[in-house]
Amino acid sequence: MIKADMKRKMDIARKKVLDAIELHGGTTLLSTGITGDDARMAKAAIDAGAKLLEPNHPAVVLARGYKGVTSMHKAEQIRHEIPISEMAKVTSGVRQIAGPNIYITVGIPGGFTEVMPTILKDEDFLLMSESGADGLHVHKTSMEDLKEVVEKAHYYGLLVDAYIGHPSDLHSFGIPAETPEDVARVAVEMEEIGVDLIGLMTGMSYEGVAAGEIPEIIRERLKALVGSVRVPTLAEGGINVHNQNAFRNTGVNILVVGTAIDDMAGNAVKEAVSSFIKQ
Amino acid sequence: MIKADMKRKMDIARKKVLDAIELHGGTTLLSTGITGDDARMAKAAIDAGAKLLEPNHPAVVLARGYKGVTSMHKAEQIRHEIPISEMAKVTSGVRQIAGPNIYITVGIPGGFTEVMPTILKDEDFLLMSESGADGLHVHKTSMEDLKEVVEKAHYYGLLVDAYIGHPSDLHSFGIPAETPEDVARVAVEMEEIGVDLIGLMTGMSYEGVAAGEIPEIIRERLKALVGSVRVPTLAEGGINVHNQNAFRNTGVNILVVGTAIDDMAGNAVKEAVSSFIKQ
Repeated sequence: MIKADMKRKMDIARKKVLDAIELHGGTTLLSTGITGDDARMAKAAIDAGAKLLEPNHPAVVLARGYKGVTSMHKAEQIRHEIPISEMAKVTSGVRQIAGPNIYITVGIPGGFTEVMPTILKDEDFLLMSESGADGLHVHKTSMEDLKEVVEKAHYYGLLVDAYIGHPSDLHSFGIPAETPEDVARVAVEMEEIGVDLIGLMTGMSYEGVAAGEIPEIIRERLKALVGSVRVPTLAEGGINVHNQNAFRNTGVNILVVGTAIDDMAGNAVKEAVSSFIKQ
Repeated sequence: MIKADMKRKMDIARKKVLDAIELHGGTTLLSTGITGDDARMAKAAIDAGAKLLEPNHPAVVLARGYKGVTSMHKAEQIRHEIPISEMAKVTSGVRQIAGPNIYITVGIPGGFTEVMPTILKDEDFLLMSESGADGLHVHKTSMEDLKEVVEKAHYYGLLVDAYIGHPSDLHSFGIPAETPEDVARVAVEMEEIGVDLIGLMTGMSYEGVAAGEIPEIIRERLKALVGSVRVPTLAEGGINVHNQNAFRNTGVNILVVGTAIDDMAGNAVKEAVSSFIKQ
């Protein structure tokens, strides 16, 4: 009895994404990290023009000081322990300050391939939908698991952004695809099972890359993705102010940025605190 | 059966404050706002040298987007609705990333004079003590209420920082004292009932003051406070990088800074987000 309601909800959500891409000249920002889960910083991001926000469970591990973890690397190992009710509360809070026109996609325990198997129940999808999420930010690593998530998400009116990774990635955040041809093939298959936004993990989060540059292979993989599907495309991992234009030039629609923004906020805090202390 | 335990806990806490004041040449920082409740930004503050942190319930209203409120002015009207369990969770998370040597004082619903009468029970003090708080950041506005809080806080091993305000303050955050002589008299009385750190509310949070300056009357009130008690002293309200030295020159031991730090973090986020968006 809710199929039309949910279709309507998803149509509105899709329009928010497309409008943001158009407004920002073909490439917009999905602002995450502290701007995804702290309402003060989400507001700052929106005030500066961000239209797409992403709260996620590993970032909430860091926000809450959960188990004393202070690195994203370690947060990924325990992110599944954050209760989904906490993610719903975070989403609801960000939605309240964001208003209805901001697109919010949420990373939830079980939406990624977790260290501990974490099952998403129907009521979890409903909870996220009711909490104000437009979509789920999904990092499943098999097509079969992803298909199940997409079906449930759509049933409860949530879009899905999902990702393609590389078989050799240190942390697995997507369906593995080895060559650019594999990327194109996997992307088409993801589109066929109904994924609403398809992204490429750069694998650059844990590598050092020259400022302003992206490796040729990442450029090729991104172009393969962009050229193979009609849905909006994303790039995630190691995107910063110095290399963003290299990403933009591939034609990708959405840059997912968290760490680079967190680092700038953290540095501002350090500068502020230092100025109030005479050592 | 816990009197010696609690005395020991308070002695350690007191030493943390005194050591920080000495380390920072007589005036240290109590870092609050986003650095009090977001573990990522608390870590940044500590990395930059902060030794004293203050999570508080109105800041958590803003952090959680509670009821869509985005201004501190409005947050003060609903801060009492934040459950004390939430403040305990925040404190525990910040403690976990801060380690044992950072002084943490916490603003909790009922620790201020609230819009709705909010009673603190024995178990609330115990909860905060167990969550890792060294002290309570108290904004009671009558000596009688403050005395009750101090007694309970001490019984459960928590120090108390409490404040002196002005009868004409828009928001009441302290025991009212009209003249500098009144400030000195009230401060002595606060010390007598056992307040461990005594602060002056500048009333400047909601006023515009010339950069680098503080009004002569605030200077006189602060000097009256500093000259009248032996416990560490604080100044709170409208302290920023431009006027901090004027505060420092009064001999006050601790500058309580929240909004100025939040603003710098928010501006850094705005700058970061703007740089990822081509309008």
